[in-house]
Amino acid sequence: MSEIWKDGRFLPADAPAVAADDRGLLLGDGLFETVKCRDGQALRWRRHRDRLAEGAGLLGIPLPAALAGIEAIAGELLRRNGLADAVLRLTLTRGSGERGLLPPAEPRPTLLLSSAPLPPTRPPARAILAATARRDERSILARVKSLNYLEGVLARMEAAGRGADEAILLNTAGRPAEASAANLFLAIDRQLVTPPVAEGALPGTMRAEIMATERVLERPIEIEDLARASEAFLSSSLGIRALVAIDGRSLADGETGPVTRRIAAAIERTERPG
Amino acid sequence: MSEIWKDGRFLPADAPAVAADDRGLLLGDGLFETVKCRDGQALRWRRHRDRLAEGAGLLGIPLPAALAGIEAIAGELLRRNGLADAVLRLTLTRGSGERGLLPPAEPRPTLLLSSAPLPPTRPPARAILAATARRDERSILARVKSLNYLEGVLARMEAAGRGADEAILLNTAGRPAEASAANLFLAIDRQLVTPPVAEGALPGTMRAEIMATERVLERPIEIEDLARASEAFLSSSLGIRALVAIDGRSLADGETGPVTRRIAAAIERTERPG
Repeated sequence: MSEIWKDGRFLPADAPAVAADDRGLLLGDGLFETVKCRDGQALRWRRHRDRLAEGAGLLGIPLPAALAGIEAIAGELLRRNGLADAVLRLTLTRGSGERGLLPPAEPRPTLLLSSAPLPPTRPPARAILAATARRDERSILARVKSLNYLEGVLARMEAAGRGADEAILLNTAGRPAEASAANLFLAIDRQLVTPPVAEGALPGTMRAEIMATERVLERPIEIEDLARASEAFLSSSLGIRALVAIDGRSLADGETGPVTRRIAAAIERTERPG
Repeated sequence: MSEIWKDGRFLPADAPAVAADDRGLLLGDGLFETVKCRDGQALRWRRHRDRLAEGAGLLGIPLPAALAGIEAIAGELLRRNGLADAVLRLTLTRGSGERGLLPPAEPRPTLLLSSAPLPPTRPPARAILAATARRDERSILARVKSLNYLEGVLARMEAAGRGADEAILLNTAGRPAEASAANLFLAIDRQLVTPPVAEGALPGTMRAEIMATERVLERPIEIEDLARASEAFLSSSLGIRALVAIDGRSLADGETGPVTRRIAAAIERTERPG
């Protein structure tokens, strides 16, 4: 039986773990990180930790002391679950509270860690432009990875219903902001471009990794840019995924293009040191 | 020890109740209702049930069979908790799921019921115009009472930080849509007005109750209308609450005005038949 870890204890994964008055459940009052692991080691951990801390600061959620030792706990969880290459999910909520929106004066946050086997590399994605959901680029929620993820869920359901793998969400100005759970990169005129965070793009950890090693132009993307792009790809903590069709129109002849292949390979090398 | 009810069982309120892979917790993938009870009876239950069913339809969450008997279960929960006048919270999530955004093919929703004593009648509210959060009036999420409630939380925290009781959220067009967890009504030129759902107002149960019995004009409200109003009040499932100041400017001389008093009394009468 697989296990999870919560607030200091390992528990069976299918056991009830969270109290009915946890604000994460009742109000989506919390944050999460999805962390790729290789050989039992969390990748890009510093980026995940920093983003979680920044989000917690924006929401006013105190960081639990256990967070300092969470890498070792994650390693132990993977061992217990017999996983080497894995995906960790770290969930931080504001913890239990009285009825109502206002948080308790001294919140006791809930920290939860679960793991799953690393999914196999996915084939190139075919995306739609989501009609059911969009990003409000001026909302704090567009800048933090919060538990308010229903727009992403609806966008992905819409994609599946239209026979696609992914959904690109437009912002309130009608410009592509990101995918349901990934950032968007386009190659236009030999230039790599991605929407800025101010456009409603989540500050993704893989996005940051790419921007630290590649020349990337951050600028608002228009829908027309999607048609002009020679290649497109999605980035998430799990990796790079080519985007080969948007709303039925093929990109890069429906194949993973050379820029996408090169960047995916460069990321892959950083994940397998030695 | 107080109890809750979950998926067929009564449990201690402080016991772990929800699995760590519940999509309500992980993604805010669910809905809720807050139901006022008098003498052990749920008030305006049909409105709550219909809104929950409509929201579940929009999100594609199947309604659990237990929902049909939930009124009797609620009565039993109140008896067990020694409550007559109470607030029920009904939470419906899409249930457990595999990692990722896409729901399982056959979701097994989680249904959760908790209760709290009815809070005492609150004094008139002083509100701010929220700067930290706003309503995207074009989002499905503005029309359903989902677990994605972080914007309301942030708005209420901002209000508290500025010494106010409530926050009014503007929509993306900069017009007042509603309060953090209540609908907004203004009396202007002897006419009761409230923003339409298309402006980002939640279709509130008490809002519907008022509109069924009073002459109410649904129209977009401008910020300038707040200054023109002779009275303002907030409506929620718990009742009517006078709004006597907005951003420090007094309304109705800082007292509960005659229109608000009349409507609050009329609602109160429907809650105490006989």
